[in-house]
Amino acid sequence: MNATSHVFRLAARPVGMPKLSDWTFAEEPVGEAGEGQVLVEVLYLSLDPAMRGWMNEGKSYVPPVGIGEVMRAGGVGRVLESRYPGLAVGDHVTGFVGVQELAIVDGKRLTKVDPRLAPLPVYLGTLGMPGLTAYFGLLDVGKAAAGNTVVVSGAAGAVGMVVGQIAKIKGCRVVGIAGGREKCAWLTGELGFDAAVDYKSEDVKKALRAHCPQGIDVYFDNVGGEILDAALALLARGARVVVCGAISQYNNTTPVRGPSNYLSLLVNRASMTGMVVFDWADRYGEATREMAGWMAAGKLRSREQIVHGLETFPDSLLMLFNGENTGKLVLAVKES
Amino acid sequence: MNATSHVFRLAARPVGMPKLSDWTFAEEPVGEAGEGQVLVEVLYLSLDPAMRGWMNEGKSYVPPVGIGEVMRAGGVGRVLESRYPGLAVGDHVTGFVGVQELAIVDGKRLTKVDPRLAPLPVYLGTLGMPGLTAYFGLLDVGKAAAGNTVVVSGAAGAVGMVVGQIAKIKGCRVVGIAGGREKCAWLTGELGFDAAVDYKSEDVKKALRAHCPQGIDVYFDNVGGEILDAALALLARGARVVVCGAISQYNNTTPVRGPSNYLSLLVNRASMTGMVVFDWADRYGEATREMAGWMAAGKLRSREQIVHGLETFPDSLLMLFNGENTGKLVLAVKES
Repeated sequence: MNATSHVFRLAARPVGMPKLSDWTFAEEPVGEAGEGQVLVEVLYLSLDPAMRGWMNEGKSYVPPVGIGEVMRAGGVGRVLESRYPGLAVGDHVTGFVGVQELAIVDGKRLTKVDPRLAPLPVYLGTLGMPGLTAYFGLLDVGKAAAGNTVVVSGAAGAVGMVVGQIAKIKGCRVVGIAGGREKCAWLTGELGFDAAVDYKSEDVKKALRAHCPQGIDVYFDNVGGEILDAALALLARGARVVVCGAISQYNNTTPVRGPSNYLSLLVNRASMTGMVVFDWADRYGEATREMAGWMAAGKLRSREQIVHGLETFPDSLLMLFNGENTGKLVLAVKES
Repeated sequence: MNATSHVFRLAARPVGMPKLSDWTFAEEPVGEAGEGQVLVEVLYLSLDPAMRGWMNEGKSYVPPVGIGEVMRAGGVGRVLESRYPGLAVGDHVTGFVGVQELAIVDGKRLTKVDPRLAPLPVYLGTLGMPGLTAYFGLLDVGKAAAGNTVVVSGAAGAVGMVVGQIAKIKGCRVVGIAGGREKCAWLTGELGFDAAVDYKSEDVKKALRAHCPQGIDVYFDNVGGEILDAALALLARGARVVVCGAISQYNNTTPVRGPSNYLSLLVNRASMTGMVVFDWADRYGEATREMAGWMAAGKLRSREQIVHGLETFPDSLLMLFNGENTGKLVLAVKES
């Protein structure tokens, strides 16, 4: 095969919101899969808030994407050629495939998925990294237990929607924070959240105080900023704050806003703990099976918002930061 | 007895640093000890950064001191009259006696101490609340273990000096942060700290980076503000941050400065946990015995800085916030 592939590469480190000029987009020859590698046709790409962090220089939990490198992204694809014994042509796989049409990837870094068990985009959301992040963050880090009041921000996003639903499954009272009436109505109407706070039209602290009369036992934070401060002010004794992300701060051109109310941790003997889902890699299988069971039983719903066409990547990514997506944002590589 | 006592009462809630006009100071009749109470001659008062917080309105881990109430303070005294079976005239006791010469206190809220085992002021420092705070904060919250790098701020204060010494006893590498060369020289020269950083003359982040090449495993924070941010930037994977206090922020007239680098918790899978020593009340005895043993063995040194005269209380309290004390600051009620 002498295939070519359209590829997005990082051209510059963005200042604030990523701009078109921070990318290059070109058609490139693909090369050959080496020993142990496979050639993957990328079908769906995961658009994640974390991608913004990967574009920055400096130490983080993964190395930054280098200037000139293919933009890192998780995805689902189909194997076109295989030189890896564990995968055959036609298999469907997930893994870090990059923002491109065709990817050559080490076979051992890919996970086979079954398109008959769930639609492929679900493997990028509820049965993928966001779902696993929700599962381990809520249960292992947040130690949510029956009767707890759980508050989650970014509640209508890929991680938040799963956090709230698992918390309900575990017998918690669940309050979601999201932007806009539609998202809030979806959380309480379809996902079974006990309450939802619209940060665009409500005073978040006041609303949380009304919805959490006993205080917050677990706060799962995806957003940082003012909303983190509002939640900190309302912690119950012994509360656990899970620091999963801070989407409100990722495009700052000023320093990150630290939580002024962090001394509530002292007053309430509470903890704030950071997490990266990769640390639970040896338990992905167990968690995915349990979540797939909940989905099959109708207790856990997934929602994906699909945008189409690889070339829309720069704009589609920004939808995350503008609060335009409900559920998991997925880019279908082919135009619809 | 128809005794009178000089008493400091809170006259106003301070804005910023407490002023003389925030207090009343008067000679008052003492009244009678009721059933179960004792009359205590207050000998030494503990001056603590936490006292500043008790002067503010609002929910905290203890109720605020009310306007017109005797200022809350821990102290050591001698029993003058007893209507409590567990205490006899002449016994020495510690407990919350208030900023006054004579106090009527419920006997069950006092703890008997032995002046032959340690000088009385030590029961307000290393063998009192600050020592217990250091012990449980470092070992139970911070989970310091042999080989860890432990950093403590306010290292020359009543809590910090004990944190660092216990960390050394447990086989940790210890770096203290304090203000001024003399304090730093005392930490490394007499207390056995591996290194000390003078925040008044050094770039704290740069100095910590040099002294903690493997990163910080336990950061015990007494100060908050910029120093907390510097430490957060240098956390090792899985680090524990103990939030014990934030003396740099207690007299702010602007909002508390939140830690901008809190996302280091995420990158490093670290936690930040607040503590109040009262939660370990059922283990005070055990910890005090162990610390007394270390003192007897010469492994744990105590230092108190004694100021004299009850009437100096308003100014003496400010020494804490101006960094003027080394070791535990104690007010001897009688003039010297």
